[in-house]
Amino acid sequence: DLSGFEQNVNNIKPEYMKLFQSENKLLPFTWIVIRIDGSHFHRFSDIQGFEKPNDEQALKLMNSCAVAVLEEFKDIVFAYGVSDEYSFVLKRNTQLYERRASELVSAIVSFFSSSYVMKWKEFFPKKDLKYPPNFDGRAVCYPSYEIIRDYLSWRQVDCHINNQYNTCFWMLVKSGKTTKEAQNLLKGTQTQEKNQMLLNLFNIDYKTLPIIFRNGSSVFWDKEMTVSDNGVITKSYKKVVVEHPNIIEDCFWEVHPLILQEIS
Amino acid sequence: DLSGFEQNVNNIKPEYMKLFQSENKLLPFTWIVIRIDGSHFHRFSDIQGFEKPNDEQALKLMNSCAVAVLEEFKDIVFAYGVSDEYSFVLKRNTQLYERRASELVSAIVSFFSSSYVMKWKEFFPKKDLKYPPNFDGRAVCYPSYEIIRDYLSWRQVDCHINNQYNTCFWMLVKSGKTTKEAQNLLKGTQTQEKNQMLLNLFNIDYKTLPIIFRNGSSVFWDKEMTVSDNGVITKSYKKVVVEHPNIIEDCFWEVHPLILQEIS
Amino acid sequence: DLSGFEQNVNNIKPEYMKLFQSENKLLPFTWIVIRIDGSHFHRFSDIQGFEKPNDEQALKLMNSCAVAVLEEFKDIVFAYGVSDEYSFVLKRNTQLYERRASELVSAIVSFFSSSYVMKWKEFFPKKDLKYPPNFDGRAVCYPSYEIIRDYLSWRQVDCHINNQYNTCFWMLVKSGKTTKEAQNLLKGTQTQEKNQMLLNLFNIDYKTLPIIFRNGSSVFWDKEMTVSDNGVITKSYKKVVVEHPNIIEDCFWEVHPLILQEIS
Amino acid sequence: DLSGFEQNVNNIKPEYMKLFQSENKLLPFTWIVIRIDGSHFHRFSDIQGFEKPNDEQALKLMNSCAVAVLEEFKDIVFAYGVSDEYSFVLKRNTQLYERRASELVSAIVSFFSSSYVMKWKEFFPKKDLKYPPNFDGRAVCYPSYEIIRDYLSWRQVDCHINNQYNTCFWMLVKSGKTTKEAQNLLKGTQTQEKNQMLLNLFNIDYKTLPIIFRNGSSVFWDKEMTVSDNGVITKSYKKVVVEHPNIIEDCFWEVHPLILQEIS
Repeated sequence: DLSGFEQNVNNIKPEYMKLFQSENKLLPFTWIVIRIDGSHFHRFSDIQGFEKPNDEQALKLMNSCAVAVLEEFKDIVFAYGVSDEYSFVLKRNTQLYERRASELVSAIVSFFSSSYVMKWKEFFPKKDLKYPPNFDGRAVCYPSYEIIRDYLSWRQVDCHINNQYNTCFWMLVKSGKTTKEAQNLLKGTQTQEKNQMLLNLFNIDYKTLPIIFRNGSSVFWDKEMTVSDNGVITKSYKKVVVEHPNIIEDCFWEVHPLILQEIS
Repeated sequence: DLSGFEQNVNNIKPEYMKLFQSENKLLPFTWIVIRIDGSHFHRFSDIQGFEKPNDEQALKLMNSCAVAVLEEFKDIVFAYGVSDEYSFVLKRNTQLYERRASELVSAIVSFFSSSYVMKWKEFFPKKDLKYPPNFDGRAVCYPSYEIIRDYLSWRQVDCHINNQYNTCFWMLVKSGKTTKEAQNLLKGTQTQEKNQMLLNLFNIDYKTLPIIFRNGSSVFWDKEMTVSDNGVITKSYKKVVVEHPNIIEDCFWEVHPLILQEIS
Repeated sequence: DLSGFEQNVNNIKPEYMKLFQSENKLLPFTWIVIRIDGSHFHRFSDIQGFEKPNDEQALKLMNSCAVAVLEEFKDIVFAYGVSDEYSFVLKRNTQLYERRASELVSAIVSFFSSSYVMKWKEFFPKKDLKYPPNFDGRAVCYPSYEIIRDYLSWRQVDCHINNQYNTCFWMLVKSGKTTKEAQNLLKGTQTQEKNQMLLNLFNIDYKTLPIIFRNGSSVFWDKEMTVSDNGVITKSYKKVVVEHPNIIEDCFWEVHPLILQEIS
Repeated sequence: DLSGFEQNVNNIKPEYMKLFQSENKLLPFTWIVIRIDGSHFHRFSDIQGFEKPNDEQALKLMNSCAVAVLEEFKDIVFAYGVSDEYSFVLKRNTQLYERRASELVSAIVSFFSSSYVMKWKEFFPKKDLKYPPNFDGRAVCYPSYEIIRDYLSWRQVDCHINNQYNTCFWMLVKSGKTTKEAQNLLKGTQTQEKNQMLLNLFNIDYKTLPIIFRNGSSVFWDKEMTVSDNGVITKSYKKVVVEHPNIIEDCFWEVHPLILQEIS
């Protein structure tokens, strides 16, 4: 019976229902960072049997998804990833989704998630994905060049601190300590002491560990040179690259001045 | 060289970086609806070759993802889906993610998206998923029982209007009209006229079309009766069900008073 | 030289400047409370020589300003005041200032402030106002009848607790104790003990103190009966009244059902 | 009877009531502008008999209130006023009221309003204030030096456009035109034509009108030189000054580099 529908068409005003939606547009002319994090990824890593403290394939899968995100959302100028976390930086004057926080966060986190599932087999050909992974996200605005640089530095400092701690922790555990004992041994230690511990106990020079573990991954658009058969550089395309630079110091940003240019 | 890191550990204050995050907690004691929509799903449906005006398998995939969402996020008390859209209603006093809008929207949209990819083969065993689908989402609060009911009615009225229009439109196109001609024929027609058109031109009684197309899909927790071998109902579990009721009229809600109970 | 102006007229786009304004509209169909508080009123009371613990004239000035606010902003259905604080409750579906928080808060706080200065001489004919008082304010939404009632109860409970404490404290100080000694004597005491202290030490029965001190002030629109010379009630106007009822119990609200009616 | 109170003390949790308050903190490290506007000041000006198109005393009263605001709220670095509107610029890293929008707006608008009433007699010794004036306000963040400069330019361009139009309009009306006729004569005219009209019809050179009308008023902290009796500059205090500079061009800002310094 459609009569009920017909009547309701006139009774429920879409304009009224829409009044309840609040826009939450992000402040114009600020760098928007969409940061996503794996939800309950401790459990996910355990169930999927990721290597500790770092699973290189899992990190490469994350990076591959980040590349796909940059290719899909052209207003993202930079991304930085570590562990199960990725930060996407949108250009300062992006008008994507009219800068509405919910839409920006959800569209990026959704695309990242479905990419993660689609690309799984490529990185773990022998492992089944046991259940749908999920990520949560948030949007934060940074109003100046110095502060967006500070944000990225903060994430890389965090990467370093966590990686160093986790490397020590898992070496201790693998050498026979309980997790409790390992925690106690590491309590209050400084960078130098942890490096000393790695060297003395396990003969590991921290500086020689893979740079992807120590520096995290930076994803951005870069020039691509195409060298023709006769050795001539014929064309240059833009492509998304994954690198592992130090993004705390100025050097990287001086070499890539366009990434965070003021008028972008 | 770690000295740069060390120095930065002390310079960048996490508390300062976190100041830029705004919380955006949703008003307590209101029903939160997380509504997700397929992004560019016109293109996605075309590329994946979905049937017009409704692809039953695609709808069932959507429903299956919604069921997974309800099983994962226990505070969701009801979901309503139509086409590439799904609305998830959280219980009035949920404290999930402390009611932070971004986290709620992103976690649900992420889990839905990864479920969609994981379940694809189950519903389209012969079709490859061509590229990662993505959904965007938003959170809206509704402060009273009447208004959350109005919201759900609004979505079902929309389902009806769109389905009736699309059914006519695609029948006309399949019968040889151009899309332009079909649009012109339908311009300004009322419900009655569209039903008449379906009956006269195509011998279709709208009321006999599959109810999933006409009413959309409702997903919720219901009692499950387990009948033992000797015919005795031994246990009753709660399980998530997919049904296609009229959710505009009171009947459904009177039969399921707990779904939107005031003190939930 | 106007040429600079002329040029700028074209360069600065008002639409661009307005993009930075965020709307912050309050959720529809919720009771909006605008609560204002005296800023640094400890200092203000000292400088103006207000009586301790309660200055009846100062309270009556506050009440008179609240009456003016209700007469000016017709969508305010109730106000409750205690000490240097006043809460104004707007009707559930008010569209005043399109429910924009900043405009609502600022317009009410501004009118209250200028009324306070204008009415000062009326309540303190012999005292000069030494400097401009100021109030700050905030808007809060309450989504249900029970919760707006809880809010008002909370304020009156606060009034009671503070008044009882302050009455004891100032009696002790006036009797010769230092403020430190008074604080120590009151530390951890319950309602009963404070009442006992007032009775035993100062022969004061708390229940006999002026009700304006104990219950705070409620301001609302009520019927006014006009009795003509010959004793006949001829007309009834609506006017704003100030009373001191118990607003925690149901009685007051049952007698005035229209104040917080659901569909107001 | 206090038993009801006692019971409620335990039933109503302040923490619960406070959950409904949303913080709305303004983005750190952006310039906050609190702009206040007279509410219904057309009516107010008529009733108070202000001169048209500009009442110099009314403007000076506004300026005097702005000075008082700067002296009270030390984090305000600049204010610009025109007609019944004033914009207050807070320093970039102010922590006043923890950058909460409602508190900032309400405290400033309240202090401005009570100052306006207190200072009325000083500027209008022969006129009674007929009723409490009120102002509404809003907070807007501007993330860069260029944009806060653009904002201020926008307000001064607006001042110029409105003043020029109003000057022409009221001269036409005072010369005998109806308001309708005056509007029609001005419709679509450019700056040059309006100036020509003033010169030809009324022998007024726009450039010679008082600068307070043409440029609005700028209020800020400046050095004060104290010249002693023997002609020696002995001390320099900081004091709040009112001037009428062109704030669109760079000159003013180059002379006062500290006002909008980046690290303020």
